[in-house]
Amino acid sequence: MQTNKNTAQLLLHCPDRPGILAEVTNFITINKGNILHLSQYVDRVDNIFFMRIEWQLDDFFIPREKIYDYFNTLYAQKYKMSFELHFGDEPPRIAIFVSKMSHCLYDMLARYSAGEWDCEIPFIISNHEDMRQVADRFGIPYYVFPITKENKAEMEEKEMELLREHGITTIILARYMQIISDRMIEAYPNRIINIHHSFLPAFIGAKPYHQAYERGVKIIGATSHYVTKELDAGPIIEQDVVRITHKDTLEDLVMKGKDLEKIVLSRAVKKDIEHKILVYNNKTVIFS
Amino acid sequence: MQTNKNTAQLLLHCPDRPGILAEVTNFITINKGNILHLSQYVDRVDNIFFMRIEWQLDDFFIPREKIYDYFNTLYAQKYKMSFELHFGDEPPRIAIFVSKMSHCLYDMLARYSAGEWDCEIPFIISNHEDMRQVADRFGIPYYVFPITKENKAEMEEKEMELLREHGITTIILARYMQIISDRMIEAYPNRIINIHHSFLPAFIGAKPYHQAYERGVKIIGATSHYVTKELDAGPIIEQDVVRITHKDTLEDLVMKGKDLEKIVLSRAVKKDIEHKILVYNNKTVIFS
Amino acid sequence: MQTNKNTAQLLLHCPDRPGILAEVTNFITINKGNILHLSQYVDRVDNIFFMRIEWQLDDFFIPREKIYDYFNTLYAQKYKMSFELHFGDEPPRIAIFVSKMSHCLYDMLARYSAGEWDCEIPFIISNHEDMRQVADRFGIPYYVFPITKENKAEMEEKEMELLREHGITTIILARYMQIISDRMIEAYPNRIINIHHSFLPAFIGAKPYHQAYERGVKIIGATSHYVTKELDAGPIIEQDVVRITHKDTLEDLVMKGKDLEKIVLSRAVKKDIEHKILVYNNKTVIFS
Amino acid sequence: MQTNKNTAQLLLHCPDRPGILAEVTNFITINKGNILHLSQYVDRVDNIFFMRIEWQLDDFFIPREKIYDYFNTLYAQKYKMSFELHFGDEPPRIAIFVSKMSHCLYDMLARYSAGEWDCEIPFIISNHEDMRQVADRFGIPYYVFPITKENKAEMEEKEMELLREHGITTIILARYMQIISDRMIEAYPNRIINIHHSFLPAFIGAKPYHQAYERGVKIIGATSHYVTKELDAGPIIEQDVVRITHKDTLEDLVMKGKDLEKIVLSRAVKKDIEHKILVYNNKTVIFS
Repeated sequence: MQTNKNTAQLLLHCPDRPGILAEVTNFITINKGNILHLSQYVDRVDNIFFMRIEWQLDDFFIPREKIYDYFNTLYAQKYKMSFELHFGDEPPRIAIFVSKMSHCLYDMLARYSAGEWDCEIPFIISNHEDMRQVADRFGIPYYVFPITKENKAEMEEKEMELLREHGITTIILARYMQIISDRMIEAYPNRIINIHHSFLPAFIGAKPYHQAYERGVKIIGATSHYVTKELDAGPIIEQDVVRITHKDTLEDLVMKGKDLEKIVLSRAVKKDIEHKILVYNNKTVIFS
Repeated sequence: MQTNKNTAQLLLHCPDRPGILAEVTNFITINKGNILHLSQYVDRVDNIFFMRIEWQLDDFFIPREKIYDYFNTLYAQKYKMSFELHFGDEPPRIAIFVSKMSHCLYDMLARYSAGEWDCEIPFIISNHEDMRQVADRFGIPYYVFPITKENKAEMEEKEMELLREHGITTIILARYMQIISDRMIEAYPNRIINIHHSFLPAFIGAKPYHQAYERGVKIIGATSHYVTKELDAGPIIEQDVVRITHKDTLEDLVMKGKDLEKIVLSRAVKKDIEHKILVYNNKTVIFS
Repeated sequence: MQTNKNTAQLLLHCPDRPGILAEVTNFITINKGNILHLSQYVDRVDNIFFMRIEWQLDDFFIPREKIYDYFNTLYAQKYKMSFELHFGDEPPRIAIFVSKMSHCLYDMLARYSAGEWDCEIPFIISNHEDMRQVADRFGIPYYVFPITKENKAEMEEKEMELLREHGITTIILARYMQIISDRMIEAYPNRIINIHHSFLPAFIGAKPYHQAYERGVKIIGATSHYVTKELDAGPIIEQDVVRITHKDTLEDLVMKGKDLEKIVLSRAVKKDIEHKILVYNNKTVIFS
Repeated sequence: MQTNKNTAQLLLHCPDRPGILAEVTNFITINKGNILHLSQYVDRVDNIFFMRIEWQLDDFFIPREKIYDYFNTLYAQKYKMSFELHFGDEPPRIAIFVSKMSHCLYDMLARYSAGEWDCEIPFIISNHEDMRQVADRFGIPYYVFPITKENKAEMEEKEMELLREHGITTIILARYMQIISDRMIEAYPNRIINIHHSFLPAFIGAKPYHQAYERGVKIIGATSHYVTKELDAGPIIEQDVVRITHKDTLEDLVMKGKDLEKIVLSRAVKKDIEHKILVYNNKTVIFS
């Protein structure tokens, strides 16, 4: 565990050109930033340069509130970069959305509670009362928005108000059984993480375990991805699978799948919390 | 390796009723058959009983040419069974179909050549000359049927003649890049094994690695299945996957996929050679 | 989920002889027991017959309190069987032992709490106060026995008293960092399940992640096993692994390992709760 | 597949200091080398900087025969680097050592033959005649050195003569059942790749599948590693595993293991051929 959190994390991508890496590292080094991590990757097909760099701010010349501007002016415009800047002492603020299943929720709260994740979870949102007891156990506020076809727009508006009030940066759909409206997706672009209980793009949509059982597959999977407007088609963050046999009933699939879902979702959330994911072209670049 | 091949293998399925297992084992035991392997499984959803039993024929009272009739009359009709009977000293006769890729072909011929598989491979069929050298290295006849849109029916007719002449029981499509016509599929029901280079039902059809690369999946797979009239939709025998990252190019996917394909295909072929697969309802029951 | 729990489960093994399967199934059928599940397996090397059979007791002729005796007299002695008999409405009573780590504990309590496991967990035992808060959250009594070298025998005596009082049938060591004494192991033969954070038999003993890191392995694992007197050498129930690279620090190994540990332990506990494990010759036969 | 092979590959490691990356990339860029691939990694525990860089030589100012000297003088001494330099048009020259098993040999020759590997395999060495037929099929010379306890030193001397004559750079032990003497290991430091048929460090030494079977593990593995003087203790390059059950006999383990062995060995060889492996402190850093 890193104790000094006075750090900055910069993620960027841009058309590849010689010298980018040297310029960016130079920028940090000459301003007395101590580089802690550096990962870069070049997509040779599309010729895109990707980079993540993390440095200590203790002796950094540039005041933290001006780093974004400086970097933008000096480098981002020159190289046509898209970039994000994060600070180690400003952890993500996460809202968890759930419906009626507890396995992903317990897994996340257990990690949060044990200090595995450097984030804040100010509250949990649900369309049902069922998970209130779990929230209570961990002392986290639980808000119910009983969405129906009729009131969806209105309810989502209230949800978004709550999200804004609490400065939520990230939404986790922990088996939340409601389609998120385009409006909310637009407000949180690549900031909503979903877990889909299949090996996408197989078994898109409802009841993937039923579909898998019907098809007679020998392996089932789970997929965590950022939510985009097209259903189950957003950038994939993490996937994993488990082997099944003809002896496994639909209930066995559901049970085995639950273990996959919670691990796959939590891996994705961890990477996101650590700002190690870059989205480009509906795909993710995941830094180690 | 089993040296005494004077054995019979019986595979059956039927509506589940009490006493089937006892009757079938009794039938063998009282006729002095020595049971070597017995596996049974009941699908509790559809209430179907599945069974595979293998026994030594050395002291078996019923002459081998009459076992089928006896069993059919005494039990199959009573219990509405579907069943197959195989003999250990009558190994499957396999025709391999290839196009231009060698990895599955080499893998299969290496196993065959090393005595891993108890089968005969009388010849290889292709629509191209490319793999002739591989066939030559292993001393296996190689027939080219240069299929075009125009001559497809005629060519397949010749292929089927060759298959019949040599008493072929099983066809392996080892990355054979031609759609098999319905007529041939009907002649070899659940007797044609294909390897598809994706984790079915994801990426059905052409260029699955391209599709996987475009979609940005984190895991790729391969699937072996029996060929049915619907493309890539037959009963799945075996699947496996390998993890990839954003760093993997399309070429990397193809390369990693090749290793999957050959292993997954060979596992399926082995199970088929050993008569350990029962097909029911477009799914496979695979005995261990 | 099975709602009618008026069932019996019989697990047995004995030297293989013809007719055992038929006799046992007969015993149940003629006494009007409705067989729900049947698995059998023959170890052809040592010639041992293994069987698990589960049946409904609703119309069973033999009163449940006499089944053990009847079966013992009629079959077990004749066939030199070892056997266990369990009833579906008498779930296992589990004591969890923990030290300072919460991941396995949370995972187990979340499953228990969600009704995934058909068992009772009357209390948690620890040698430290650290996990009391977790126990409190789930409303489960938490007893601390602060074991030292000096007081170990005395403390374990008290623990065993508590175990006896509550009719504990199964002990789970959920990363409990104390060696269990021979006396307690003798009192709970194959009834204590441990999770070891390595792919046994690699990295036996203390600090397996340190050992794995030092050795430079490319895969780490976790192993759940029944505790026997020889350290980390008991019958293995379940193992799983995860891939690592040179980039993974010791902390990364610990973090990735935690996810393995909890899943591997919970899979083992589930199999044990369902009475699907038979131990023979320091190995496990695991029925599906 | 890369068609222009007029490239250089530089692998290096040294104590980490600011500016190394910039200096090395600068060295190549200002001399008009076109960088194709760059991977770097810093071990933050031991503070070691690792790097692999590949560039095109077409317009490179420094003549290829002088690159080593220049780099050594200008940078390696300054930064206390260990480094290797390879050229894309000077592929590794591999000698394969085998005994009696064909699966790894076939797998490697099939890949070599299909052009998957950019290397030369001038000959195969064995202590038995058994694999001559396989070598013949691929038209590769096959030399037998029938090693006994008495003649070992003398035979190895002849082997090394042959290796030197043919400019062999890399030795692959493809299930070669002889201990390599210290003398030969010293002559080929981290240049001999072995496949061990277990998940090292479990089951070191002879008959690992027997050991695995006896121990009752639920997963078996294979490990490829560079050979050092301590048995099965060299730097691990690649490992993989496959799940087994109590039903798997020793023969099943051997059979499933073979598929692991050949894939794991071939993955290691491929990484070695591409000069993507750096050895440090008895561990490997593997560049992607």
